[in-house]
Amino acid sequence: MYKSKRISDSTIHRLSLYYRSLAALEKSGHQTVCSKELGKREKLTPAQVRKDLSFFGSFGTRGLGYPVRELKDKIAEILGINRTWNVAIVGVGNIGSALIGYKEFQKQGFHIRLAFDNDQRKIGSLHKGILISDVKELKPLLRKNGIQMVIVAVPAGSAQAVVDEVVEAGVKAILSFAPTNLKVPEEVFLRTENMAIELEHLSFHLAKPYYRRPARP
Amino acid sequence: MYKSKRISDSTIHRLSLYYRSLAALEKSGHQTVCSKELGKREKLTPAQVRKDLSFFGSFGTRGLGYPVRELKDKIAEILGINRTWNVAIVGVGNIGSALIGYKEFQKQGFHIRLAFDNDQRKIGSLHKGILISDVKELKPLLRKNGIQMVIVAVPAGSAQAVVDEVVEAGVKAILSFAPTNLKVPEEVFLRTENMAIELEHLSFHLAKPYYRRPARP
Repeated sequence: MYKSKRISDSTIHRLSLYYRSLAALEKSGHQTVCSKELGKREKLTPAQVRKDLSFFGSFGTRGLGYPVRELKDKIAEILGINRTWNVAIVGVGNIGSALIGYKEFQKQGFHIRLAFDNDQRKIGSLHKGILISDVKELKPLLRKNGIQMVIVAVPAGSAQAVVDEVVEAGVKAILSFAPTNLKVPEEVFLRTENMAIELEHLSFHLAKPYYRRPARP
Repeated sequence: MYKSKRISDSTIHRLSLYYRSLAALEKSGHQTVCSKELGKREKLTPAQVRKDLSFFGSFGTRGLGYPVRELKDKIAEILGINRTWNVAIVGVGNIGSALIGYKEFQKQGFHIRLAFDNDQRKIGSLHKGILISDVKELKPLLRKNGIQMVIVAVPAGSAQAVVDEVVEAGVKAILSFAPTNLKVPEEVFLRTENMAIELEHLSFHLAKPYYRRPARP
């Protein structure tokens, strides 16, 4: 009997950060690391680090720290980056273009296999080594190439129609850059990336005085 | 005596989502909204919504819900999006280009005033209405134009040097797309965006069986 635990987006995000710190530590020859050190780069408390990691089992020994390589490999397994994934991009505009050329993807096992657009001038051409296909061929090509993740980088108005086809093709994970709310069935994991929200983290910090309130006595 | 409370990144992110839901509700003529409704779109529990909002004061009336417009305006104030900000982009490659053309920025009050590159072929040309300046002019131009936020979209190897100059120019908020760890002084807010980490949320969900463990009795 297995039951999946509910892991928050923030925990997953921190696992990705730990993975990167551990990879850097391994590269510089470290064998073990304590929770304080692991949290330091990202300004996280040792308690937060220990809590996040304890979610997935028991690692490390009190006083000795975590074994760098073992923990790195375990997190890679949890994040599903100890293997490769077939990814397609729909929409080869500015953002789609940028993502096709994004070197970190390949490094983490995310291989862009297909790209789609509806612009006749782009269809049939190569973009950084990737052939751009007609979006009309989306469903059959996603299926034929065993695509597991799709990045949607089309205008807001076309996004839901694209997402519907992606879902019909059996894809279970979608990352959307379209600034609009999208509907997917329960079993499909959809993540929406909004660049303006990134800047709102900055403006929140710059505007801080506005929400300050009297300290409690 | 005022004291700023520690607000997590996830809370700030959720405020941005509430803001968008409230804007949509206002547009469709809603006067009030309950925490359940406000959380629904983003699959958040009513308790989470109430907890997030109570952080910033007391809104709403039990049984009647929150006043849509008032709450929207309050969140805009907290997020600092009830005003405009002067933003510069350094690096007009694929990502920088995409961001210059990103319409949501302007909508939320983030105005791209300047863009910089080190490519002589780009310097002096207009990109979507924005003049591309020589990155050698970074410091004086940031100061002269009262830039408050900088988006760094240069290769990893040049990012720290760019960030150092941005900090010297007195800018207190930076969003970096360079896949590398950057150092800034305590008083500067730095946020790093890594597209590969976005995909790791997807692979985590697809790879889920790997971390499932026996349910407790």
